[in-house]
Amino acid sequence: MRTPLCEKLGIERPVFGFTPSEHVAAAISRAGGLGVLGCVRFNDPDELEATLAWMDENTDGKPYGVDVVMPAKVPTEGGQTDLESMIPPEHRAFVDRTLDDLGVPPLDTSDEHAAGVLGWLHSVARAQVDVALKHRPALIANALGSPPADIIGEAHEHGVPVAALAGAVSHALHHVDSGVDIVIAQGYEAGGHTGEIASMVLVPEIVDAVQAAAGDRVSVLAAGGIGSGRQIAAALALGASGVWMGSYWLTAAEYKLGSASGEGPSTIQRALLSATSSDTVRSRIYSGKPARLLKTKWTEAWAAPGAPDPLPMPLQNILVSEAHQRISAADDPDVVAMPAGQIVGRMNEIRPVAESMEQLVGDYEQAVARLASL
Amino acid sequence: MRTPLCEKLGIERPVFGFTPSEHVAAAISRAGGLGVLGCVRFNDPDELEATLAWMDENTDGKPYGVDVVMPAKVPTEGGQTDLESMIPPEHRAFVDRTLDDLGVPPLDTSDEHAAGVLGWLHSVARAQVDVALKHRPALIANALGSPPADIIGEAHEHGVPVAALAGAVSHALHHVDSGVDIVIAQGYEAGGHTGEIASMVLVPEIVDAVQAAAGDRVSVLAAGGIGSGRQIAAALALGASGVWMGSYWLTAAEYKLGSASGEGPSTIQRALLSATSSDTVRSRIYSGKPARLLKTKWTEAWAAPGAPDPLPMPLQNILVSEAHQRISAADDPDVVAMPAGQIVGRMNEIRPVAESMEQLVGDYEQAVARLASL
Repeated sequence: MRTPLCEKLGIERPVFGFTPSEHVAAAISRAGGLGVLGCVRFNDPDELEATLAWMDENTDGKPYGVDVVMPAKVPTEGGQTDLESMIPPEHRAFVDRTLDDLGVPPLDTSDEHAAGVLGWLHSVARAQVDVALKHRPALIANALGSPPADIIGEAHEHGVPVAALAGAVSHALHHVDSGVDIVIAQGYEAGGHTGEIASMVLVPEIVDAVQAAAGDRVSVLAAGGIGSGRQIAAALALGASGVWMGSYWLTAAEYKLGSASGEGPSTIQRALLSATSSDTVRSRIYSGKPARLLKTKWTEAWAAPGAPDPLPMPLQNILVSEAHQRISAADDPDVVAMPAGQIVGRMNEIRPVAESMEQLVGDYEQAVARLASL
Repeated sequence: MRTPLCEKLGIERPVFGFTPSEHVAAAISRAGGLGVLGCVRFNDPDELEATLAWMDENTDGKPYGVDVVMPAKVPTEGGQTDLESMIPPEHRAFVDRTLDDLGVPPLDTSDEHAAGVLGWLHSVARAQVDVALKHRPALIANALGSPPADIIGEAHEHGVPVAALAGAVSHALHHVDSGVDIVIAQGYEAGGHTGEIASMVLVPEIVDAVQAAAGDRVSVLAAGGIGSGRQIAAALALGASGVWMGSYWLTAAEYKLGSASGEGPSTIQRALLSATSSDTVRSRIYSGKPARLLKTKWTEAWAAPGAPDPLPMPLQNILVSEAHQRISAADDPDVVAMPAGQIVGRMNEIRPVAESMEQLVGDYEQAVARLASL
């Protein structure tokens, strides 16, 4: 499954693995794909610096990428306090009442309050890019909208291509105009922020529109619903130059984030392992923009009659930031707040990344051979 | 693109074309696919009889299928009057007010009232099956749920395989248990009645579940989002034995239903030609069950604040039956009530079926060759 994009980036196969875990990202890169480290959880540039130094040491010299979050339209600054004051008290009361009802205890200390939301601010994302460019990223991806022109310029000066997610042709064309090098066509079935057009329709639409607008200068990856070699074959048949997989790696053996109980699958992994493809919901409760989440008692509380409408980004992020920490600390598989795509129905065991990658490649080859034989 | 299913049904390629138009269905069969005539619009068995006699004469001896609608759980009888009395007056008032607001005139005569809904009743669907079995259908499909056991038995006695649509693995397994021969895995992006799981995830899930439950006895078709050779290649890569396409054929040159202005594209076709993949909505307003429709002023009225919740099937069918006739007669491309999938964004010209089929095949072969070359 080598596409021209593999040559450009120096990777063996066009399997891009987005993950907040440096251990998973490094394993994906070592297995011949491109591990892309999600940076939104790094509020402290020094922590990201140390993590990328670790990535440099643990990827056998193979390429890796980083992913930052720079929403197109949010107050870039203004301070936490100003934003806090814009949150209606009824929303705060609903969150507190819901957490109580679900048996989620308060945090032990308050010093972690508001952590997790800073990564969504432009100033923090810019600092992350600055830190990343001191290392050797093969890709900088932006999860929301086109990155600002100066960020793209800075990345290009360092010879680093830039990727951005698109849920519609109009987004993809905006990315092309902005100078983005790789458009990630992310379908409805994807985890996290998604649009309404499913991958089967969206991917070839964006492939055609990008080809018409930019020729071979810009590549298109398929994201959303991919977790098997057959699905990779389908994505490439649709015209994509590779696949972008996120949810799939959450059940990697190397994924240790959010684990509260030592060895064995973490609480979140146990919730993912038992979910079917019907157990997700697309909702604005996670960030203010529609995002697909694992269906749990937390998402159901927001869907119940009488629940308030989620606030716009970034107010909703701020509203639920402490709640997410409380939920994480409570360590209850029935009450998690976790982005996950419909592919969760296929995530039924904890396996090392290398083993998963081997199976993806084998199944892909079988699917292509079957097609060729028809 | 020959799969074993082609041998079973005596068709050249596993392209199943669902359409309410006998002219389109016959053209699909003549072009080497399997044209499947939607029967729900035939309230009068004699009219269906005459249409199938026409099909027999106009398909060059090639196979064709029929599609009936037998919802799993509705009052099979009870009479129009009993059902009418269960519709709240507020719902009727909303429909009347909305049609007035949208400038849709009343019908000239009332003798057509309630036509269009009878086809949804079991007694009518059974009569359709009886009529069909006097001809030579190669397939009987049911658009909603598993067909009743006696219908499957009757079809099998005539040597006719039975197909049913599934939006989730549980539906597919129920079909297998019921004796269905072909499961149509219909993804979220499809027009008409759809579930929430998109094709990229749903198709391989159902392929695997059906294979485990029934081996090669039952075949799986992919439906939802398919309107190009690349998408057919993707569907077969996902493990499907063929594709089921519906919306795609609405812009066939042979499609003449709903045309009010003689030559040229009909009003509905003009609405379809100008729509993008973002211009559909999944709603219960068409029948009481979630169905994807073209987004128009009619669907927007039902989504506006203050609009009532749609009624359950079959009450919603009855509620909107006359409205659909009024809308059809009004002939306004901004106010149509039409099932259509997200693939509508690719339906940008009126072409004869044979020409479309030729392009599907050519593009499919290119996609497979590209995959094989990677």
